Parts: sequence; C-alpha cells; structure tokens
Amino acid sequence: MAKKDDGSRVRDALRIGGKLPDPGSAPVGPGKKPKALAKLDSAGERLSALQESLYAEGVGGGSRSVLLVLQGMDTSGKGGTVSHVLGLVDPMGVRYAAFKKPTAAEQRHHYLWRIRKQLPAPGQIGVFDRSHYEDILVPRVSGLLTDAERRRRYAEITAFEQELADAGTTVLKVFLHISPEEQLKRLKARLVTPEKRWKYNPGDLEARSHWPAYEKAYTDIFEHTSTAYAPWYAVPADHKWYRNWAVAELLIETLADLRPRFPEPDYDVDAELAKLKGVGVPA
Amino acid sequence: MAKKDDGSRVRDALRIGGKLPDPGSAPVGPGKKPKALAKLDSAGERLSALQESLYAEGVGGGSRSVLLVLQGMDTSGKGGTVSHVLGLVDPMGVRYAAFKKPTAAEQRHHYLWRIRKQLPAPGQIGVFDRSHYEDILVPRVSGLLTDAERRRRYAEITAFEQELADAGTTVLKVFLHISPEEQLKRLKARLVTPEKRWKYNPGDLEARSHWPAYEKAYTDIFEHTSTAYAPWYAVPADHKWYRNWAVAELLIETLADLRPRFPEPDYDVDAELAKLKGVGVPA
Repeated sequence: MAKKDDGSRVRDALRIGGKLPDPGSAPVGPGKKPKALAKLDSAGERLSALQESLYAEGVGGGSRSVLLVLQGMDTSGKGGTVSHVLGLVDPMGVRYAAFKKPTAAEQRHHYLWRIRKQLPAPGQIGVFDRSHYEDILVPRVSGLLTDAERRRRYAEITAFEQELADAGTTVLKVFLHISPEEQLKRLKARLVTPEKRWKYNPGDLEARSHWPAYEKAYTDIFEHTSTAYAPWYAVPADHKWYRNWAVAELLIETLADLRPRFPEPDYDVDAELAKLKGVGVPA
Repeated sequence: MAKKDDGSRVRDALRIGGKLPDPGSAPVGPGKKPKALAKLDSAGERLSALQESLYAEGVGGGSRSVLLVLQGMDTSGKGGTVSHVLGLVDPMGVRYAAFKKPTAAEQRHHYLWRIRKQLPAPGQIGVFDRSHYEDILVPRVSGLLTDAERRRRYAEITAFEQELADAGTTVLKVFLHISPEEQLKRLKARLVTPEKRWKYNPGDLEARSHWPAYEKAYTDIFEHTSTAYAPWYAVPADHKWYRNWAVAELLIETLADLRPRFPEPDYDVDAELAKLKGVGVPA
C-alpha cells in the first residue's frame, strides 16, 4: 500500500524527542495550504484502502486494531481532526469516543475503567478525543495529584498500553500543538459566531490561565510515557490544513506498517461458485 | 433546514403498509442514476447540517438522538448504506454497531441486553447493522421459535421501542429490499473478485434457500412491529444509487422533523468577550 521507502518519514519527523516543533511550522511535508489539501485528498484513498484491509482482516478473525489518541489544549482541533481525517474512511471501521469530565458513576471506578470500555474491536480504528492522559493532566494542574500518585499513573498507563500492544492494538498518540495566540483567535471565533457558541466553554479560559502548568504537565507525560510500543507525536496545529495532513499521514504510516491483508477465504471458492451455478431463484 | 412542504414525502411513500414496492423500482424521487447521485451529493450537506445541530443540542444538555435500524437479506447493502450515507456526516456524531450471531456470552443474556449497550448517546445518530429483529428472524426461520414466544418478542420489542421513544430516541427502521436475482449477482461478484471474498459467507446460500420463509417472517414483523412511534420503511435496494438516496432522505426527513437547534449559550457572551479582551498570552 504505502511505499516502503517513506514508510516512517512523517513519524520520524514528528516523534517527540525533546523540544516541540513550533505550532505554526511544517517540519515535514507540504508547507502551503493548497498542496496540503491536495495531498490530504489523495491520502484519503490510501487511508480508506488500508482501513478496509484492516477491517477485512478483523472479519477474517484477525485481532489487530489501531487506537488514535488525540490530546491537546482546548481548540487545538481534536474534533476537526476527527471530522476531516476520520471522515475520509468508512464509518463501519471507526469507533469514536470522547472523554469529558468523569461522571459521578465513572469517578467511583478506577480511571482506566471507562477507557477500557471504549477500546476498538479487532479491525477497527479507535479514536480517543481526550483520553486517560486527562487523568494526569487535570488533577496535576489542579494540584490534586501527589508526585507519588503521578508516577504511579505513568507506570499504570505504560503498563496498560503495553497490554494493548500485546493484544494487537497499535496505539498512536498525537499531541495537537497550538500556540496561545492561535487559541485566543479560535476562542473569539467561537464567541462571535452564533452557530459556534455551543463549542465555547467558560472553563476554557480557566484552563488557559494555567497554560505553563499544562505545558509542564505535557512535557513530563511525553518524557514518562513515550515508549517503543506507544510513542508520542507532536503535530503543529496552528494551521488546520497542516494538522489534518499530518494526522492522516501518521495514521497511514501506522496502518501501512501493519500490512493488513484481506483474509484468505476459509471456504472453497470454486465449490461455492459451482453451488451458485446450481442455485435457482426462490419461488 | 428541510423544506416544510416536502417534509415527509419520502417517508410517506416508503412507509410499509401492505405490499412492498418492487426491489428494482423508484417509487419516489429520482428514477435514474445520474440524478440520484447528484441529489445524494446535495443531501450530504443537509444531512451534515442537521447532524451537527442534533449533536450541538446534545452537548447543550438535550436528550434526543436518532437510531437507524438497517435490516435486509445478505448483500442487500447494509454496509454500503453505512459507508455512502453515514459517511457523509461527521464521525463524531455517528455510533455504528453490527449485530452478528450472538456470542456464547451474549446468549446467556436476554436478547435485548447487547442491543441496549449500543444505543446512541444524546445528540448522536446510532446505526444498527442488523438488530434485535434478527432475534425473531433467525430462530423463526430455523423453527426454534414457538408462535407464543414469537408473539412475546413482538410485544417486548414494541415496548422497548416505546421506551426509546419516551427517552428521546427516534427509531427509523429501514428494510433494504432486494430481489433474489440481484442477490445472486452480488454473491457471484463477491466470489469472483478476490478483494471481495472476505464478504462472502457460505452460510449466505443456506439463508437464501429459506428466502420465502424470511419473506414471511419479515412480513409478519412489519405487521406486528410497525407503530406510530417506530414505523417500518421499505427501500427498494436493487439499485445502490436509489438505496443510498432514499436512506439519506429518510434520515433527513426524520432529523428535520426533530428541528434540532443549536443550544442557547448558558454563559454571558458579552461578558466572555470582554474577558477575552483582557486575556494576555501566557508567559
């Protein structure tokens, strides 16, 4: 499906390993909007083909799946990514879950309880719009997480992701990286556009006021939970066209790596064709 | 959103009330492929807009949702409908569930147990690819359902759907109606096309051999479970272009009827705009 020689070009460029790229930059791939849109268009076909193969593999008894974890500050474009990138593939193959503030019922369970319930089935691409990482970010920034508890959560989460990898789920963790200047523009746009007002939440400004604390919390998360089996990627997200292109490519490279294949029929094709020849039209 | 004067034109024409339309016919709407494709294209925009409003309403605390139930013989195009019709809207707003042969674990529960777990959340469009109706169809055709038990299931299912309606879920039940001749063509196509072979199941021929029994079982289901709050619609499905157009229109009419609205902000827009003005860029 994807060419072998560039099979991890975007992943290599965007894997987090130290300083994050500038939110307005384009460290790999198209640097201008028209080219990025055209490339996203053709990426759609590759993504669809790979998704269909993975899905077929699942129907044929395969156990593999992909889980895209989207994290980022408010307005960083998690929803837009789902719409523009996952919207390119068959809805049958996508399982989307958003994790908001835990409900009272959810809070009575371990924080991974509600996460486990939303894992993709074999053959599916799962998408987490926020995730178990919120269970480090929010309590940490609110000062409700001791250092010992925070370290325990890193360990629990890496163990959980190892378990997923062992079970056949490839976890792709993407941080959508926007600048505070761009966030301000987007928050304003949500307020001045009547049909966008439902997306605005006064709490977003409260979170924004803790921007440096979130940056620190994210940095530590990247350091402690980037593993060989589930590394973190940073996607510069001030430009929506770049964000969409980059996430599509990260997904394509990840899926192509799995080399999903249509399953071999577990029946005799010729025998079935012969049976069909003898089949009449029911009265 | 949708014009008031044709707000239930397609539903009126396709609502089951006696003899089913011919599987190759086009009882309402476009009668030729090019026109149907063009109309589906513009339907996509209306469907997307309605879906976004419903979703926003859900975010704003609304409880309403829509559940599209797809039934039909093998190859009738349930999967194709999901891909071509639900593929037109934002994946965030769609919850897809396929119901295959119940697993051993599922069989230990009441047949509605696994169904309830897949209901759409407020604001979502749920899609059932097969459904609780399989729990009448399959055992009945296999001779495993007494008449008394069958009647009990009709009653349980209409009560269940009443419960859904009361909770704010509008159930749209669609029978994709294909002819045995068209099914034969599609089964052959699945066998001769290597990348379609995974969709073929030798059991499909076994089911096909009971075609008249399935027809009878469906007829009785339509008679006993078509209610004012959850009527059945038959979509002629020998032509994929007609099927896609018709299901899209049924969904649009159903959504338009709900008149979903963007929620009023539960915050003071001007006050928030003023706050944004005073917000600096975090250091």
